[in-house]
Amino acid sequence: MDSTERVRVLSRDGETEHDREDLLAVEEPLEIRVRPAASEAPVSFVTTMRTPGRDEDLAAGLLLAEGVIERPADLTALERPRDPRMSAELRANVLLATLAPEAFARAEKLRRGTVMGSACGVCGRTSIESVIRTGQPPLGSDLRVPGSLLTRLPERLAARQSIFAGTGGLHAAALFDASGELLEIAEDIGRHNAVDKLIGAYFHRGGLPLSRGILLVSGRAGFEIVQKAYGAGIPILAAVSAPSSLAAALAEATGITLVGFLRGERYNVYSHPKRIG
Amino acid sequence: MDSTERVRVLSRDGETEHDREDLLAVEEPLEIRVRPAASEAPVSFVTTMRTPGRDEDLAAGLLLAEGVIERPADLTALERPRDPRMSAELRANVLLATLAPEAFARAEKLRRGTVMGSACGVCGRTSIESVIRTGQPPLGSDLRVPGSLLTRLPERLAARQSIFAGTGGLHAAALFDASGELLEIAEDIGRHNAVDKLIGAYFHRGGLPLSRGILLVSGRAGFEIVQKAYGAGIPILAAVSAPSSLAAALAEATGITLVGFLRGERYNVYSHPKRIG
Repeated sequence: MDSTERVRVLSRDGETEHDREDLLAVEEPLEIRVRPAASEAPVSFVTTMRTPGRDEDLAAGLLLAEGVIERPADLTALERPRDPRMSAELRANVLLATLAPEAFARAEKLRRGTVMGSACGVCGRTSIESVIRTGQPPLGSDLRVPGSLLTRLPERLAARQSIFAGTGGLHAAALFDASGELLEIAEDIGRHNAVDKLIGAYFHRGGLPLSRGILLVSGRAGFEIVQKAYGAGIPILAAVSAPSSLAAALAEATGITLVGFLRGERYNVYSHPKRIG
Repeated sequence: MDSTERVRVLSRDGETEHDREDLLAVEEPLEIRVRPAASEAPVSFVTTMRTPGRDEDLAAGLLLAEGVIERPADLTALERPRDPRMSAELRANVLLATLAPEAFARAEKLRRGTVMGSACGVCGRTSIESVIRTGQPPLGSDLRVPGSLLTRLPERLAARQSIFAGTGGLHAAALFDASGELLEIAEDIGRHNAVDKLIGAYFHRGGLPLSRGILLVSGRAGFEIVQKAYGAGIPILAAVSAPSSLAAALAEATGITLVGFLRGERYNVYSHPKRIG
């Protein structure tokens, strides 16, 4: 399935009007189904609206962020359904994840809750505690980068957002190394999906934790973005736009350096400024 | 609970650095619990990360968008828990909705599914069909507005985003009448929440459907934003940024005029251009 789609659009500029083609980011649901063995019937775990492309990365990143899988051995297979009674369109929007027994048990526990978000508890303090309880201790990475390196990252991200630049409709997440080299980029109509795709790619290649990495997101940084960075062991998270109150509090609690409003030569550091030299 | 929070931040501009206060948009979870009668124990329906403020509007808009409630009689009460064993913080993040029997049955059906998004099916075409099946027929509003009226709306929205302008972290949704008068505005860290708050306010005052209204959102327009506009009967939906492919397709199918990239004197019309004179 394509990531962009051409549509006819009536374009107006003041009194001028013309019919033209416009390029839109594709948005389609992806359903992730889980099972404890290839011989068992899968059950639906979650459906997320996403831009098609790198679905396997998205699924792994999402299962990781939800705490269902923790290491490559937890995800024994990730494949399209082969059921010939399913339409090609449906198969393109479903992924079957075969999980190790304890990972499947975690998925079932989450499934029996209400919805995904409910795992975070119902007040900010509980939310933060639940993230830290389920994960590793606060990040202790001694990564340290000069501020002049940070300020060059947004233009490097923008230079690589080539395919989808035409749509103006996609969030991007990029991982940089300690010298500011762009290692990986992911784009999606959903901000969380872009981060899941990026982290999921490293999960598949056994590249976690990313304790020397810098994660840059094109938009805002909310609670769940910090939670995902923490799950992947990323010590520096930078956002082009604003963080939320809870994102700043969670970054403080998890040992993440949170940078916001990274624009031109300016930026704010909301937590653990020691990593910015 | 406040909608904004002051935090200490290290602010850098090139080589200059100073400590200052920054204003962040508050992000906290809101849990909506439902019950069929005030005497019954409530069950958790959904938890959403939101900016506190107008929680009752958010809850009503969300229950409406999910198809749980359809008319004021479906929501017999909406209140904070009074349980003295709950902390004040927890009580501020929970709302109890008492539902009419058939509305409670719909909530239970959704709860027993996997997650909220799953209601939309697993391929674009199914998603669109499920929205139309559950709702009214395509919108037939004969509302018609000049293009010069549309192009004035974003600045009117921006002029009213006063409280939160400082945080740079909030999405906004505004409802205008056919003469371009701003009737209602809602802001939230979540784009969907802003629309739910806005529509929920009209639900509470018995003001739906909004068949003479124009809905403007500050960011992008995805599938679910169009779905919410349709549920509220709003015939014109305008976004400052890009729509998704599925948003354009759903707007076409539901009879909604979808306007995107509304900036300065320019905009694109993705569906039903007849309403823009």
